Amino acid sequence: MSDYLSPSIGKLTPYVPGEQPRDGGYIKLNTNENPYPPSPRVIEAIRNETARLRLYPDPESEELKAAVSEYYNIDKNQVFTGNGSDEILALSFMAFFMKDKPILFPDVTYSFYEVYAALYGIKYNLVPLNPDFTVPVEKFCTENAGIVLANPNAPTGIALGTDEIRTILENNRDKVVLVDEAYVDFGAQSMVPFIKDYPNLLIVQTLSKSRSLAGLRVGFAIGDSKLVEGLNRVKNSFNSYPLDRLAIKGAIEAFKDVDYFKETTWKIVNTRERVKTKLRDLGFIVTESRSNFLFVSHPGFPARDMFARLKEKKVLVRYFDKPRIDNYLRVTIGTDDEMDIFLQRVKEIFL
Amino acid sequence: MSDYLSPSIGKLTPYVPGEQPRDGGYIKLNTNENPYPPSPRVIEAIRNETARLRLYPDPESEELKAAVSEYYNIDKNQVFTGNGSDEILALSFMAFFMKDKPILFPDVTYSFYEVYAALYGIKYNLVPLNPDFTVPVEKFCTENAGIVLANPNAPTGIALGTDEIRTILENNRDKVVLVDEAYVDFGAQSMVPFIKDYPNLLIVQTLSKSRSLAGLRVGFAIGDSKLVEGLNRVKNSFNSYPLDRLAIKGAIEAFKDVDYFKETTWKIVNTRERVKTKLRDLGFIVTESRSNFLFVSHPGFPARDMFARLKEKKVLVRYFDKPRIDNYLRVTIGTDDEMDIFLQRVKEIFL
Repeated sequence: MSDYLSPSIGKLTPYVPGEQPRDGGYIKLNTNENPYPPSPRVIEAIRNETARLRLYPDPESEELKAAVSEYYNIDKNQVFTGNGSDEILALSFMAFFMKDKPILFPDVTYSFYEVYAALYGIKYNLVPLNPDFTVPVEKFCTENAGIVLANPNAPTGIALGTDEIRTILENNRDKVVLVDEAYVDFGAQSMVPFIKDYPNLLIVQTLSKSRSLAGLRVGFAIGDSKLVEGLNRVKNSFNSYPLDRLAIKGAIEAFKDVDYFKETTWKIVNTRERVKTKLRDLGFIVTESRSNFLFVSHPGFPARDMFARLKEKKVLVRYFDKPRIDNYLRVTIGTDDEMDIFLQRVKEIFL
Repeated sequence: MSDYLSPSIGKLTPYVPGEQPRDGGYIKLNTNENPYPPSPRVIEAIRNETARLRLYPDPESEELKAAVSEYYNIDKNQVFTGNGSDEILALSFMAFFMKDKPILFPDVTYSFYEVYAALYGIKYNLVPLNPDFTVPVEKFCTENAGIVLANPNAPTGIALGTDEIRTILENNRDKVVLVDEAYVDFGAQSMVPFIKDYPNLLIVQTLSKSRSLAGLRVGFAIGDSKLVEGLNRVKNSFNSYPLDRLAIKGAIEAFKDVDYFKETTWKIVNTRERVKTKLRDLGFIVTESRSNFLFVSHPGFPARDMFARLKEKKVLVRYFDKPRIDNYLRVTIGTDDEMDIFLQRVKEIFL
């Protein structure tokens, strides 16, 4: 480790994203990418914008904020945009959670939350999920400096209803409740309609999953304009132009082509339900996922071995070597053809 | 201000970038953009990559690091990439300057440095430039926790030679000397050949200026592999994928098309020298700029008024209402035609 490092930085354990194999040939079900390409309108808008690359983008991405606010029927000043939802989560932790008391999030959830907390020296308590991986709502109604909930949760896929999240919001009126809705479009209920009721509600979403744009790096947050102003304050002290011209134009069209969005998310949800049934038929325990992945375990076959055997067979899924979930696999929903091959490979392993 | 903000965030005064007018018709000489478009190879590479946007990019941008390291004949692990040089500067401040003692940078320089320091609670001392805006080398050889120097400096355009920077490096062997070479390709000497000699030397560059890609948001840092490892540690605790697929592919071609790069930077340098002479003929004081802008003052005409009059005439330059430089204008070098119009408008104001 370098002697030149800031002392606090030397102690960090960075986040490790899912494998991105450079050699082809894999059926890639490990990073929750969308199996369908983005809308053709997205591609066209990006190609048209290449003529203006010598000029800086709009630092406030006003046109994108307008598209998001129109889609959700909210005000433009209730929208914040950033370089993927990961950047927005990082900026949110800095803007709202650097306080004396600990923040709360589940023990089983997106593992980047712990990394952000460490980066900014934020104290946190992990709230154990119930044995069935559902969220114990009452345990988020205790003393804290802020709350982070992925809904649907990752990697479990299980979603809270809006009533449960409202209970948490009402019991935490003096701190920010951040709801990470990265996977919400695959069948969970968004909290966006409630931002007018809860000035402490901050919702983070991404275009990487339901809008097929993992390669473009665009996310957004929605909340009371004062929360958005707080995020802008941090963003404009960090990087004025996090979204490039192509990302802005592509993201706008992704929001405008509603039909394409509905069609592709509908297909993924249908495939998910079909695969879920087949896996249960094979003896798997499968959570009720409202996301574009399934979280599965088999009583008769260790997940770690299943992961390795599937990888040998050129099917890449995600395995987390972590307490409570080290006998589970997270399987992204691909096309129907990809999932049929996945199911076939699983059966081969069982033979 | 929101009650929900982290206490330290409420005190921030964010950076304000140069105006990006949404209505056209301006000759835009205010944000140091390149007047020439990027290489056609950049555009082609971006268009080809749109087919893969549903997939995450390589989080480590290995292919881009290879292109940069090949261009500079260094190792790939001596290169760090990020979402514009602003993001890299922010990550660098966090990685190397969060220490007990203050860091040093000039009183007249890129104003984002003070904002980064405030964001991370980093102490700093401003070192006054000499009356002619040159850097007092000896004043950077005093006790400190790190040094930041833009070379050429902004908004003055004045460059230090490599010998002077080596003196500073040799007198600061136990801390990082960050050299911000955003404008180096327009006639200053890069410190890249010296990274093998100085493990404390960190160089930050951008593709926004000399490679005509302000709209794509790509920057990079070059230094000893241990410094790069430190930056990776912070980056991977903040945002795994700061560069999107299109930015990576476009940036690679920008580095590979060396002829185009040389031709366009050469044109800008020539235009700069021509305009400098003409402005001096009109009675302006003009610094010896090694950048793609001129820093000018006129003994007989207040800069603030000149800025306003030029704006009325649809020529946008940059005015900084700050101590020591509030009678100067920073004028980006545009095409020859644009600069002829600029000179014509200046003459009209003098009439």
